[in-house]
Order: sequence, then structure tokens, then C-alpha cells
Amino acid sequence: MTPSRETPSLLSADHVLHTIAEDLAHRFAGVFSPETVERYVFESYTALGRTARITSHLPPLTERFARERLTALAQSKGQAPHDVPEVLLVCVQNAGRSQMAAALLDHHAQGLVHVRSAGSAPGDALHPRAVEVMGEIGIDLASSFPKPLTDDVVRAADVVITMGCGDACPIYPGKRYEDWELRDPADSSLEQSRQVRDEIDARVRQLLSEIITAPVADH
Amino acid sequence: MTPSRETPSLLSADHVLHTIAEDLAHRFAGVFSPETVERYVFESYTALGRTARITSHLPPLTERFARERLTALAQSKGQAPHDVPEVLLVCVQNAGRSQMAAALLDHHAQGLVHVRSAGSAPGDALHPRAVEVMGEIGIDLASSFPKPLTDDVVRAADVVITMGCGDACPIYPGKRYEDWELRDPADSSLEQSRQVRDEIDARVRQLLSEIITAPVADH
Repeated sequence: MTPSRETPSLLSADHVLHTIAEDLAHRFAGVFSPETVERYVFESYTALGRTARITSHLPPLTERFARERLTALAQSKGQAPHDVPEVLLVCVQNAGRSQMAAALLDHHAQGLVHVRSAGSAPGDALHPRAVEVMGEIGIDLASSFPKPLTDDVVRAADVVITMGCGDACPIYPGKRYEDWELRDPADSSLEQSRQVRDEIDARVRQLLSEIITAPVADH
Repeated sequence: MTPSRETPSLLSADHVLHTIAEDLAHRFAGVFSPETVERYVFESYTALGRTARITSHLPPLTERFARERLTALAQSKGQAPHDVPEVLLVCVQNAGRSQMAAALLDHHAQGLVHVRSAGSAPGDALHPRAVEVMGEIGIDLASSFPKPLTDDVVRAADVVITMGCGDACPIYPGKRYEDWELRDPADSSLEQSRQVRDEIDARVRQLLSEIITAPVADH
């Protein structure tokens, strides 16, 4: 039996992923075994590749996704710093609402909380309207990308905010869960998307005032 | 900060999942660490929960999914038997085409190949029309469920068949890849679904004749 299809660019991804795994194994030495890190890298690659539009860009995103997941897992095991509240924002596609909320929370929190986001059925790219209305207030979503919800980021979270994704997120004890009802920018006009952005902004400020005691700055 | 939502049924899932992880750790003792097995169980649960319609049924499906993934991973590392060709069938939802193909291949192969299936964007249940037209030829899909494509099952495969899922499946060296163009039963009438079933049946028999030397029985 011989391979019936040859794809040199993707074959070399295998090599790049092994290099990423070696680097991350070094970074997480003493916390996770090289085998665990390699599993995270390859499963993260396959998970992003399931829904990505352009798979040639995946290795650098895989590195970020796997690193963030391993960091979350290490935090949940008490093996990485957990100095500020961890907030996880989950919507369906991780292409609009949860990305806007994550960026706004990160912006206002000024390092006083750490933010992650994910989707129950991730889209293949951010929604252009979400990128546009965030750009209008000076927040750049260019480096953001949709990611599937994983157990590790739920475990690491102190606060989980769901937006329109039903029961997709596991419920674990000791965390604060909230569900926000918001219009999906994917189904909205530009003006409606601005309203969603501003509603998210108000909710994010309210949340922030409840989970930290320091004053919340204006953008 | 206190939990703002109490969901006893899902909190107890946490306990059930730990029990599943302990049992699987025992089964895979000497192959995988208990930590690796626990990660597989919880990530499998979250992965199925992302798209499941009824999350209360998830623990038993999680056990099967995690066990199959760990077996595939052990095979790819040479730590579990790999006596017959492993065939992986991938479509978008793992709700129609890949499930029909997996069931037909398993039926005809009579143990001479081992079959797995997965989807790039798994649906929340099997497509009723796929279940119906397979039932007409005496093959029961009642215990099948849509599963996301994972790296471990690709690694373990000797043959990967993709059906309409684009480049979602990683390409690794040393495997046979084929792409089958088939109508999606989700967009088809009952009669068209029967035609898809019969076309899959012919392709599956052809594939089987190429990967094993024993004669292929009629159903």
C-alpha cells in the first residue's frame, strides 16, 4: 500500500510541529512530560485544522493555542502562576461576541484579570463586522483566531461567561458562571454590531467591577 | 466570588468522569500515565459536549470516545495490537456519509480491517435518513454518534478516506489517502440517500479488495 496523494507543504508541517513540541517541552519542563506536550501540539493542530480555511497558516496558531492550553492546565494544577482572576468567554463561533468581549475585558482590566475565549463550533475566521466595530474604538483583533472550547481552559477559569452556546460548556464546582444574551454580530447590520459592542462593553465593565476592586479606566 | 449557577446533574458528571478515568487508567496501565488518561477523558467529554444536543448522555459516549482514542494512540506508538489495516473515514458532520461508510466497511470486512470515523464539524446526532437507509439493508447505526476528528485516530490509520471535508484532515507520511466525492444525505431525498448508500457500498468493497487479499462477502 503506497500513499496515493503527495502534499509536501503539509508533510513539512509535521516537522514544524515536532520543533514546536520540542520548544514547548523545554518551556514546560518539570511540569509536563515531553509526551504530554507533543500530544497537546498535535491535537491542537488537528483541532484548529478541522475548521480553518487556510491550513498553511496553522503552525504558528497551533503554537499559541497549545501554549495557552498548557498554561491553563498548569494553572489548574497549581503549577503555573495564577495571580489574577482568569475569565473565559465562550460563544458559538469564537468569531464575534466572545472575541469582542475578550478584547474589551483585556483592554479595561489592564492586567488585573487574564482573559481567554473559545467557541463551541468555531468559525473559520473572525467575523469582519466584529473586527470593524472594534477597530472603530481602537482595538485591533487582527491577531485573534477562532479556537474550539477545551477542558483545560474551563478548568483554569475562575469566571466563565457563555453567550448563545447553550450547555456546551462543562460546569465544574467553584467557578462563577454567567450567561449573557446578546445578538450575534454575524446576523446583524453594522449599526446593530456597534450596539452589541457597546452592550458587551457595559457588561464587561460591570463584571470587572465585581471581580476586582481597583477602578476601571475608560477607553 | 461564589458560583452563581448550580447544576447538580453536571456537577455529578465530574465525578462520573473521574471514575471513567480511573478505569481507563487501569486498562492502559504501563502504556499511558493516569494523568494522560484523565486528560483524554476530560478533553473527550468537552469535545463531545461542544456539539451534543443532550449533555446528560455524554459520560458513556465519553468513555467510548476516550477509549477508542487511547487505543489509537497506543497503536500509533506500537504499544497496542495493530493486526489488521486501520481505516479512518472522515466527512464534515460524521452524521451521514462517514458513518454509513464505516458501518458498511465494518460489515464487509468481517474483522479483516478495523474502522474508525470522525467529522471536521460534528453534528449533534446521526442524520435520520442515513440511519433509515442503512436500516433497510439490516445495518443498525443506533449506537453510533458524531465525533470530532482528532490527531490520534489519524496517526493510527493506514488508510484515510475523506468525503467533502476539504483539507480538514492532517496529512502524515506513510498513509494512503483517498477523497471520495459523494452527495451529502443531509441534502438528499430518501431515494437519493439510497443511491449514496449503494455508491458508498461499491466504493467500500473496492477499497476492501485493494487492502486485503481475502474474498469480500456479500451482505
